[in-house]
Amino acid sequence: MSTSGGASPPEQPEVFTRIRLADRRDVPNIHRLIHQMAEFELLTDLFSATESSLSSTLFPSPPLLPFHSFTVLILEISQSPIHNAAEDDSDQGFRPITCRIALKSTFADPEESIFASPRGDGLVVAGFLLCFPNYSTFMGRPGIYVEDIFVRESWRRLGMGKMMLAAVAREAARMGCGRVEWCVLDWNKNAIAFYEGMGAEVLPQWRICRLTGEELSKYAVDEEDSAGRR
Amino acid sequence: MSTSGGASPPEQPEVFTRIRLADRRDVPNIHRLIHQMAEFELLTDLFSATESSLSSTLFPSPPLLPFHSFTVLILEISQSPIHNAAEDDSDQGFRPITCRIALKSTFADPEESIFASPRGDGLVVAGFLLCFPNYSTFMGRPGIYVEDIFVRESWRRLGMGKMMLAAVAREAARMGCGRVEWCVLDWNKNAIAFYEGMGAEVLPQWRICRLTGEELSKYAVDEEDSAGRR
Repeated sequence: MSTSGGASPPEQPEVFTRIRLADRRDVPNIHRLIHQMAEFELLTDLFSATESSLSSTLFPSPPLLPFHSFTVLILEISQSPIHNAAEDDSDQGFRPITCRIALKSTFADPEESIFASPRGDGLVVAGFLLCFPNYSTFMGRPGIYVEDIFVRESWRRLGMGKMMLAAVAREAARMGCGRVEWCVLDWNKNAIAFYEGMGAEVLPQWRICRLTGEELSKYAVDEEDSAGRR
Repeated sequence: MSTSGGASPPEQPEVFTRIRLADRRDVPNIHRLIHQMAEFELLTDLFSATESSLSSTLFPSPPLLPFHSFTVLILEISQSPIHNAAEDDSDQGFRPITCRIALKSTFADPEESIFASPRGDGLVVAGFLLCFPNYSTFMGRPGIYVEDIFVRESWRRLGMGKMMLAAVAREAARMGCGRVEWCVLDWNKNAIAFYEGMGAEVLPQWRICRLTGEELSKYAVDEEDSAGRR
């Protein structure tokens, strides 16, 4: 415990956070965050994203409608209160969410210069979330699927992941969605406990099937050659 | 074996199939198929879709762009070759796929009058597939997620499910998608063997997390009341 119990409390260390929609200028940071996530999940062999592929698919012109297609939220932190600039308030369909978090002690973020925010003002990017609509036929309603939620090592265990997921849950509930869903690795017990604490259930019976690489690309030609089309 | 090996082979029983994009007129059949699927998966307690909810979310005006949003394919069967009408050929972005399947014996479909196709001509709806785009951050590319693939009992084990999945895989490969993904129940060994035979891998480690019902709806209000927004 680094806080003292004296009658005159010391100044409380704190950090200010903002969750906002990403734009094209965030791509270099998003790319670095995805690579860190691949390292954390021991899946760097699956990492092939480039800044160019992210930019063209996530931030095309005209821009995708937030929460109705691929949507990226950026988590920024600052040592001082964050004031939304005009450009932030113009983010269609998602008002940035700012918050103050009390810290038990001050600490350094060794990557803060690498992850400087393109919005300036000393803001540092600490994480991101990527989501998109999915659909439940049983409910006959859309939902939201969270593909990734990632907070850099320095800023974990402060509730920031929960803040991003709660922001998506709020949007989903407001849009009348039936579900918010995401996946977790079965060995990641901390994450499972965290998600259950948020009200989620972990479904034990479903397994993901994936068709990718050469096994997928052969369907581009196979079908016309061999499937007996008339 | 019901086919004979004689020098003059008997007339081979056969059925003709078509896979086409669904439209709003298919909603009653889609609704019935989803209910049958819920029964098969022992999940009728999760079934709350109505024709109205399906119609407004899957077939809004203007229509959703196939494979770029929620997309429903309909599987039809007929005793005679299926000729695409002008309206079928105008299906934006997906040319109907027709095929002939040889049968080992003739048999009755006890539900054929219930599942008559709105396209007439004696066509009967035998199944459906619902899919939508997803996104792989590791690949930096979109993919396609197949939420449901269902063939009615009378028409199983004839390769029709594979035909629908192959149709989606072909579209995905042509669109430059990185992956086609779907889920399977871990006790459905027939389905797992079938999917693996199509080139898919079943991922053992991932589990689905789901936030739904009251646990989801409370996020619509919780966040503003309690998350320390400034």
